[in-house]
Amino acid sequence: MMQAESVFLLKGVPSMSDNQSSRITISAFSWIPDFAIGNSRDISVRWALAELGLDYDTHLIHASEPRSEAYRGWQPFGQVPAMRDGETELFESGAILLHLAGREGKLLPTGPQARATAISWLFGALATIEGPLRVATLTPLFHGEEEWSHGAVEKYSALSETRLQGLSDSLAGKDWIAGEFSIADIMLVYVLKTFGGEPVMKFPDLVTYVERGMEREGYKRAIEAMEADLTADPIAA
Amino acid sequence: MMQAESVFLLKGVPSMSDNQSSRITISAFSWIPDFAIGNSRDISVRWALAELGLDYDTHLIHASEPRSEAYRGWQPFGQVPAMRDGETELFESGAILLHLAGREGKLLPTGPQARATAISWLFGALATIEGPLRVATLTPLFHGEEEWSHGAVEKYSALSETRLQGLSDSLAGKDWIAGEFSIADIMLVYVLKTFGGEPVMKFPDLVTYVERGMEREGYKRAIEAMEADLTADPIAA
Repeated sequence: MMQAESVFLLKGVPSMSDNQSSRITISAFSWIPDFAIGNSRDISVRWALAELGLDYDTHLIHASEPRSEAYRGWQPFGQVPAMRDGETELFESGAILLHLAGREGKLLPTGPQARATAISWLFGALATIEGPLRVATLTPLFHGEEEWSHGAVEKYSALSETRLQGLSDSLAGKDWIAGEFSIADIMLVYVLKTFGGEPVMKFPDLVTYVERGMEREGYKRAIEAMEADLTADPIAA
Repeated sequence: MMQAESVFLLKGVPSMSDNQSSRITISAFSWIPDFAIGNSRDISVRWALAELGLDYDTHLIHASEPRSEAYRGWQPFGQVPAMRDGETELFESGAILLHLAGREGKLLPTGPQARATAISWLFGALATIEGPLRVATLTPLFHGEEEWSHGAVEKYSALSETRLQGLSDSLAGKDWIAGEFSIADIMLVYVLKTFGGEPVMKFPDLVTYVERGMEREGYKRAIEAMEADLTADPIAA
């Protein structure tokens, strides 16, 4: 139950921007291997930007080229995406989604419980669900011919299923995890879609949830924008 | 360079509470195996609460007993910690640290770049560093006698080191990752200390960073409070 006195909770995480005009730049790829198209981490950020109706520039890098010192100063792991908003730089897609929601005052519920639920699941997607799921589903892709991979997949698939059960139970009867569509759904759908594989297929409600997310105009525009930035491999060419 | 117009960025994530009197409860363990003492996930939350000078109640559960339906309604994965602040419930230690910083207007820098850096690293600790590190260091503990574990440890130790290099480079010349001590340091030190093992030992600066964190009064009080809640095993007894 919501009560007036708890309105302060997480107050201001979303807040109307004083400065809609500061220019946003995100880093993304000019080339990635075919199997990774649609799964790069800039997708969640592009999706949020599309939902918010914000234009942005892209700083493009080639997935297989070494990162520059300058880029590592912006993104310490050399990953994609990083964001620049006016003079401020940040990284990690979770931090960027939270920043965008706060900047625009959208994509997070305003009620304190729903907002707390959304932020809990934003972290849950990345910290608790993705970890075992990516080991379970990427290990066969990258190490499927190595003997150790089978044991790792078995162990992490089982762990993934216990985590997905928690999400499935929490989602029961709802379209979106915090009631209304939020940055938590963007991250959850991204993680389930990208790292899901067999463990997710065991949960028909989660498959439907992913489809519901991917049917949104914002998701479609994110994929189009990502594809428009891809060029024929400039190294291979 | 900071500029006045970017002060809106992440505005309000930390904000003075309107209601200092709402009671905080966290979930924690009444019993855990010896090797896990000091490493349970309530440590980071207890540490933040100690730094903030906030009292709290604990809802204690036995690590090896099945979680109740009611508890899974509060913490969907059955993990520790979850938090209740007045009427509002949340989970995931990252979300809880962000909530506490916002509630009290402390443990996050006020400058927009430093704040963005802190929130980026709060996610980075959980989403990018912990993932490979926990596979690298917990696999030998739980699966060391299984054939597959050696290959997994080798692969994830190498990945961990590239991630730790990014942290090490970003920390160069600083005591704390965003300049002043913040919730990012609490989470980074917790992750490095708990899942660190051999990969972290290769970075003397990160070892010193962990020691610096563990020397803080807040950390010591967190460990004392955690130990005070542990009882002799009520099942074994």
